[in-house]
Order: sequence, then structure tokens, then C-alpha cells
Amino acid sequence: MPRSTAAPVAELVERARSGEPRAVARLISLVEDASPRLREVMAALAPHAGQAHIVGITGSPGVGKSTSTSALVTAYRKAGKRVGVLAVDPSSPFSGGALLGDRVRMQDHATDAGVFIRSMASRGHLGGLAWSTPQALRVLDAAGFDVVLVETVGVGQSEVEIAGMADTTVILLAPGMGDGIQAAKAGILEVGDIYVVNKADRDGVQNVTRDLRAMLALAERSPDAWSPPILKTVASRGEGVDEVVAAIDDRLAWMRANSVLEERRRSRARDEIEAIAMTALRARFAHLHGDARLDVLAAKVAAGGTDPYSAADELIDAL
Amino acid sequence: MPRSTAAPVAELVERARSGEPRAVARLISLVEDASPRLREVMAALAPHAGQAHIVGITGSPGVGKSTSTSALVTAYRKAGKRVGVLAVDPSSPFSGGALLGDRVRMQDHATDAGVFIRSMASRGHLGGLAWSTPQALRVLDAAGFDVVLVETVGVGQSEVEIAGMADTTVILLAPGMGDGIQAAKAGILEVGDIYVVNKADRDGVQNVTRDLRAMLALAERSPDAWSPPILKTVASRGEGVDEVVAAIDDRLAWMRANSVLEERRRSRARDEIEAIAMTALRARFAHLHGDARLDVLAAKVAAGGTDPYSAADELIDAL
Repeated sequence: MPRSTAAPVAELVERARSGEPRAVARLISLVEDASPRLREVMAALAPHAGQAHIVGITGSPGVGKSTSTSALVTAYRKAGKRVGVLAVDPSSPFSGGALLGDRVRMQDHATDAGVFIRSMASRGHLGGLAWSTPQALRVLDAAGFDVVLVETVGVGQSEVEIAGMADTTVILLAPGMGDGIQAAKAGILEVGDIYVVNKADRDGVQNVTRDLRAMLALAERSPDAWSPPILKTVASRGEGVDEVVAAIDDRLAWMRANSVLEERRRSRARDEIEAIAMTALRARFAHLHGDARLDVLAAKVAAGGTDPYSAADELIDAL
Repeated sequence: MPRSTAAPVAELVERARSGEPRAVARLISLVEDASPRLREVMAALAPHAGQAHIVGITGSPGVGKSTSTSALVTAYRKAGKRVGVLAVDPSSPFSGGALLGDRVRMQDHATDAGVFIRSMASRGHLGGLAWSTPQALRVLDAAGFDVVLVETVGVGQSEVEIAGMADTTVILLAPGMGDGIQAAKAGILEVGDIYVVNKADRDGVQNVTRDLRAMLALAERSPDAWSPPILKTVASRGEGVDEVVAAIDDRLAWMRANSVLEERRRSRARDEIEAIAMTALRARFAHLHGDARLDVLAAKVAAGGTDPYSAADELIDAL
């Protein structure tokens, strides 16, 4: 009788929950590989959902994201908390990212069983960032980490996307990097819950802080909304990092007190369900495509025999 | 009896085909607004599809895209051809682009009835670039332009997306802009059919050309594939532009002779049908959401009562 060489999902989940890093890594690989076993994994994880504080960390290249993440991990470990780190690379499907190099700087924590660090590429992925990241976060959440840091390079819309997947978003800036542009671009003023000006020992820190404060003052906020603090750090020396941890804790307490945490998590679950449903429907189209129906419709549209809307109707009817 | 104030679609299409710029502009606005009349518009346009040569023009900010586009328009007009220009701004949903400023430089052609120029923002759009651009191109194609130039800033994946929508893709480069990086990023070496080094009167033009040639030589191409030429221009003085026009014509002739044009157009129609179908399905989810079904499922997932896959199954079943 053949035996499956893969560990049963229930066992993997139990091992991940008991703190075994290899089991956590294996579960995230199943997400990355879009494994057919994912349904079973997610079903096994579901009862353990909603325990971790998911903290997004983003900013332009060069602001010191990796150093800041490492410093936060150190601070959380001092406080006895288990920390998961997910570094998401939103690069284009054609070029690799530099994140693996950055990971080297995280080696301080390599032998600490209370820390789990993982880079995840979203390029080339079915549904990309929107599909794989929430599921990897589900793994880390269910595995019992107290805090999960999701680090991503702020390029294009990635920071806005990541903010949508986190409970709390920390936006990093640094002096001397075209700061007005940094802040104005990609709507980071709309998504930041905590702003941190890193490399605060450098010239220009006052300018960044002042510009940021002025821009935040212009943003329309209801009187009972969270008011994002602006903090300063020198992450490479650990300076100001405890204050960032305190601000993240304050934010969590505020969200709990104002029912914001629940609403955010429901809204995220909504996006996640939709992304999975869309991916499933797209896969069905691909199957129809295998049946050549989409090809036939496409040839008809290309030849002017029908229009894309009518063709799309036919495709949906064929589902 | 109430009379509709909007012109009937058939009449708009007829006027667009007879060369009336306001009718063309109106049809593109219907695309931008995702008008409910779009189905009718696309059905009316269908019989006139597939006449124009769709030429994508892309490159990093500062390479001279707008100047080059304008110079190409001048060259095509000299040859008696009607030209449509669609400038697509792939900016993030939160920030406006600089393209409108660039449009000013196109005013040379403002009074020429054989030229139609339109900027289109894709931000905030249902389905974004992938949804609206092909439909705007359908309008320009059916309106009887001989050539349609689609200009877009090369940021993130936008150039790869635009290449997928064009028959022929022209990649612009310029000396002194971190050229290796320009070429390597976002896979432009995978999508360019013609490479143009603009600002060829500047220092460093030999380096760009040499690097580009070396990189293209490394790309794997089957022996019967199109071999992309590398040309040099000083678009601001019109130098080398006739050679670009000749290369674009060569490419069209080659595609026709090798059945590539038909295959590309079928493949585009396939993507377009799929994008419309996905948008329609997403809209149905939103309607279900109005019925609170998605909300109920999301709350259940957030509370750990079910997993996102099972919830997505329920959602699809409810369609």
C-alpha cells in the first residue's frame, strides 16, 4: 500500500503551533507554491485565527526598513514576545529583488526560536500579492506569533496593498531622499498609522518631520479617528525603537477599544475571499480555454464578428 | 414623450468614422466613465476592427517620449496617414500624473484634423489599465486611424502591460540615465520590437547602444523570430525619425508575412474578453455584498468559523 511522503496537514499545523520553525516554513511554501493542499491547510488554521497583531512596515528603498525591522524584533524579544517576519517582494515578474541580500542583516535572530523570518516573492504568482500574502499571514497568525511584521518596499501601489493587509501600518522615511515626494507618492499619507523618521542623526531630519506634520495636518480626519504619531529613530543603534513598539501597542489598544480591529479584520477577510474566488473563476476560464472556447471567441472578436462584451457574456454563461 | 439627450451610439460611431474628433472623444469618455452604453458602443465598433497598426511607445521618465511621439506624428502626417495618440497614465490611484503637462508640447498638431490626441488616466479605474486601454484602442481603431500610438511612462509593469496591447512596441532609451538599469528593469528586453536611443547627440550614446546590443544578443530568440533593430534619434530636431517610421512599417509587413499579427490580435482579444468577464463577475460579488452575503462570510472567516476557501466556494455557488 503506498504511503504519502508528505506530512499530514493536521500534524504540520500542530507542529507549527508548537513553535517548530520548519513546520511554519513548510506551510508558507505550500502557499507560495499554490499547493492543492492549501484548502486543507486553511481549514485547519481557521480556528486559530485572529491572535497576532499584524504590523506592516514600508517605505522607499534606502530608508532602513530591514535595519528597523531587525531592531523591532530585538525589542519585542526583550519583552518576551514571539515575532514572525514576512518580507514581501513586490518586484515585477521579470526582475528579482534585493530583499534576500537584506535578509543577511537579520542573521542576528537566526538562532532565536522565538523569531521566524521568511522572504516571499510575489512575482509571477497567480493573483500576486493580493492572493499569497494574506494566506502566509494566516499561517503566521495561527502559528501563535504575538506580532507579525510584514515588510515591503514602497514601490508603486505595494505599500497601499500591504496596508490593506495589516492591522497597523508603520511608514518609514529618512532625511535626504526627496522627502516631500516620498510622502506624497502612492498615497502613503492615506495609509500610515505610525510614521517613523529613521536615520534621525542625519541632516535634514527637522525638514522631513516638519513637512510630514504639515501634510498630515492637511489630511481630513474625523475627530474620533486615530491620530498618527511621528517618531524618530536611529535603528542601526536601536535609538527610539522602544517608542515605536509603545506606539504600535497604543494603536492596538485603541483599535480594540474602538471596534476598529474587528472591522479591519472583517474587511480583510472580505478581500481575501474575493481574491480566492476570482482566482478560482480565472482558473475555470483557463480550463474553458483548454476546451478552446475562449480561443474561438477571441478569434471571432479579432475578426470583427462579435464584440468583447458579448464574448464575455458567452464565457460567463459557459461557466 | 421624453427624448434622450445623448446622441444615439450608431450616430456617434458614424461621426467618429467620418473623422469628427468630438465624436471620437465622446466615445473614449464613455470608456473612461465605464458607461453602461459601452456594450452598445463595442457592438457598433466590432465590424470596423483590426484596421489600425497599434504602436506602443514606452520608456523611463525623461527619455523624451512626448517629443518622440510628436515627431512620429509629424512624420506620419507628411506621409498622409491619419494618426491617433493615446497617452496612458499608469499612476497610482492616489497621485495624478505629469502627462497633461507633456500634452502641451503636442499642440503643434492641435489644429490638424488628421491627428487625434487623448490622455487617459487609468487610476481608480475598475480593472485599471487592462480594462480601459484596449477599449479606447478599439475606438481609435474603428474610427479609421491608420496608426495609433499608445504612449505610456515605463514604471513598474506598465510597459509590459502596454506591450501586450500593441502590435508593435517601441522602447525609448536615452544616454546618461543609468542605462543598464533602464534596460534590465521590468523586462523591457522581453517586450521591445524596436529600440530607439533618443537624445543621440549627447555623451554616452555609444555606451547605451553597445550595452543594449550586448543584452539583446544574450536574449534567446528562435531563428525565425523578429530581430529588433536599434535606432538613434534626436527627436527634438526630427533627426532619425523617418528611420523609426520605416522600422515600424517593416515590422508590420513582417508580422503580416508571418501570421504574427493575427495571432497577436487573437491573444489580445482573449485577454480583453477575460478582463471584461472578470470585471462583470466582480460586480456580481459586489451585488452579493449589497445583499450582505459576502459580509456574513467575511465575519465568519474573521471569527475563525470558516476558512477563506470554503467561503469563496459559497460565494461562487451563490453567483
